[in-house]
Amino acid sequence: MLNLPDMNDLNSAGLQARLRHLIDHKTKPLGSLGQLEALALQLGLVLQTETPHLDQPQMVVFAGDHGLVAQGVSAYPSDVTWQMVENFLAGGAAVSVIARQNGLALTVVDAGVARELAPRAGLQLRKIAMGTMDASQGPAMTADQCQAALTAGAEVVRGLPGNAVLLGEMGIGNTSSAALLMARLTGLPIEQCVGRGTGLDDAGMQRKLSVLSQVMSRYAQVVDPLAVLAAMGGFEIAMMTGAVLEAAAQNRVIVVDGFITSSAVLVAQALQPLVLQRCVFAHQSDESGHARMLAHLQARPLLNLGLRLGEGSGAALAWPLLESSCRILTEMASFESAGVSTAGA
Amino acid sequence: MLNLPDMNDLNSAGLQARLRHLIDHKTKPLGSLGQLEALALQLGLVLQTETPHLDQPQMVVFAGDHGLVAQGVSAYPSDVTWQMVENFLAGGAAVSVIARQNGLALTVVDAGVARELAPRAGLQLRKIAMGTMDASQGPAMTADQCQAALTAGAEVVRGLPGNAVLLGEMGIGNTSSAALLMARLTGLPIEQCVGRGTGLDDAGMQRKLSVLSQVMSRYAQVVDPLAVLAAMGGFEIAMMTGAVLEAAAQNRVIVVDGFITSSAVLVAQALQPLVLQRCVFAHQSDESGHARMLAHLQARPLLNLGLRLGEGSGAALAWPLLESSCRILTEMASFESAGVSTAGA
Repeated sequence: MLNLPDMNDLNSAGLQARLRHLIDHKTKPLGSLGQLEALALQLGLVLQTETPHLDQPQMVVFAGDHGLVAQGVSAYPSDVTWQMVENFLAGGAAVSVIARQNGLALTVVDAGVARELAPRAGLQLRKIAMGTMDASQGPAMTADQCQAALTAGAEVVRGLPGNAVLLGEMGIGNTSSAALLMARLTGLPIEQCVGRGTGLDDAGMQRKLSVLSQVMSRYAQVVDPLAVLAAMGGFEIAMMTGAVLEAAAQNRVIVVDGFITSSAVLVAQALQPLVLQRCVFAHQSDESGHARMLAHLQARPLLNLGLRLGEGSGAALAWPLLESSCRILTEMASFESAGVSTAGA
Repeated sequence: MLNLPDMNDLNSAGLQARLRHLIDHKTKPLGSLGQLEALALQLGLVLQTETPHLDQPQMVVFAGDHGLVAQGVSAYPSDVTWQMVENFLAGGAAVSVIARQNGLALTVVDAGVARELAPRAGLQLRKIAMGTMDASQGPAMTADQCQAALTAGAEVVRGLPGNAVLLGEMGIGNTSSAALLMARLTGLPIEQCVGRGTGLDDAGMQRKLSVLSQVMSRYAQVVDPLAVLAAMGGFEIAMMTGAVLEAAAQNRVIVVDGFITSSAVLVAQALQPLVLQRCVFAHQSDESGHARMLAHLQARPLLNLGLRLGEGSGAALAWPLLESSCRILTEMASFESAGVSTAGA
């Protein structure tokens, strides 16, 4: 049984009003920085200050394999999961490159990769099992495994410094898990949740939809969020759910990547809706279900660049916009301090 | 008479194919970096290399005043133009803050501010006049002034180092000029080009539309791009037009900010369509005409954050995405180099 962390409602009228006042008196027409103003307000609330500074941001990529891949739901073989973990650590993957560019510390977590990985700097070995079981044959994980993954995700966050975490993932087959979680937790039909993942063709897409429809039927009676997570999730998704809950409880800024990372947030907010106050949605993925998932979460993503890579690459790309939002609060002059006339003056 | 600079067509089949091949073999599903892949391809073509590096990027903000403001087309008084120039140089404006964050050298150009500005580092004094004339009474500038502004814009670019320029502007009243240029050069009705600028209310918006409609009628026979620019433009817009032509001729990457900067590109591409190959459109502004202007230019902007500030702030915000695109080409591993299996393997 999960002990949900305590979490406070950040929308205290006082700080919110002070932040709004500060933003509105910066040297710019009212509202002219658009979504960055809403982001500056949110970051001030999460960090509980009128002068937010993002400190030691941590990019964390959770990796795990999926038994369901045996049913042919992915264009790539499961081996790509460990191969990409090696690539993350060697610095050659998209998320490695963009994290380096933007000053993000990168940690890769083996949540359940189907291969033993050699220990090294930047890699946390927290393998629950050598991949999940095949969800079309039985639950992807046991309740104990699910609990262990949630706990491990929380521990990862507790062990990292700073006040912001960016979450990403790697796991061949995990758009299937994310689509299943989405369908069950939002109530949308599975057809509206499933997408081409890494690039299925039409025939592959039909197969994926057929497999996922069977899985949905199999667990038609399962509705409790944690039971849904165990039945249809992945170890990397469960660890991200634990990470979101812990980071939110600590009032860290949580930068959410794409479709799969958002599905972990979907589970977390079903358990504790206040986590959403701490989440910044980095981008709208090209994976077809993501726009609907974001709408369900009432989330307004920062970027919409047709990305569908995962890894946390979209979160890393959006990071400079969070920095900019803080600096609007901390570095921009006010009309008064700069001696600039106001509208109608 | 303007001497248009020579410009080559960048779409040489050889380099384009080599860049496409490189991008397609990076460790990611085909096309999964979306718009960043198109941007990487473009940057490779502009800089004529498979390993593009952005060098010493220059943020240049052109400032000028507008005689048409006498007709009540802006929510802010003309004094805000020089006051904001002071704010740019003091480091307190949005563009100052974001340029500093993203490592962009900032130059402010007095193209025609209605006040004498004290010389100092970071400010280029290239004033054509103390603001344009009132375009509702006669052409905003003479043909000679227009020519001088184009030349000055080109000189500014020639005097700056690096292989990328980011263009921005400041000028109370200049959404009016941009809307007028747009209406005449695209053929769209002025109603579809005009917007609230810095924040006009409904009554102000009606007045602006009425004034701009009169100006359109007054110059109904003026269709030559340079004559249009002289009749309805601003000194800062004309200088940006010259800067775009020169930067394009030098194969520098040109990062275009919002509505007003795009209007300068609109004039430049009417003179030389190949400039568009060198232009990266940073964002879609909330100023209502900008989406239509971008559509006319067949431009796909990187960001859509509801910004309507100008200054070059959107260009500065988008800058890290250009850096990321270059690094995708220069730093990401290939499937082969990283030993990652490909689709269907």
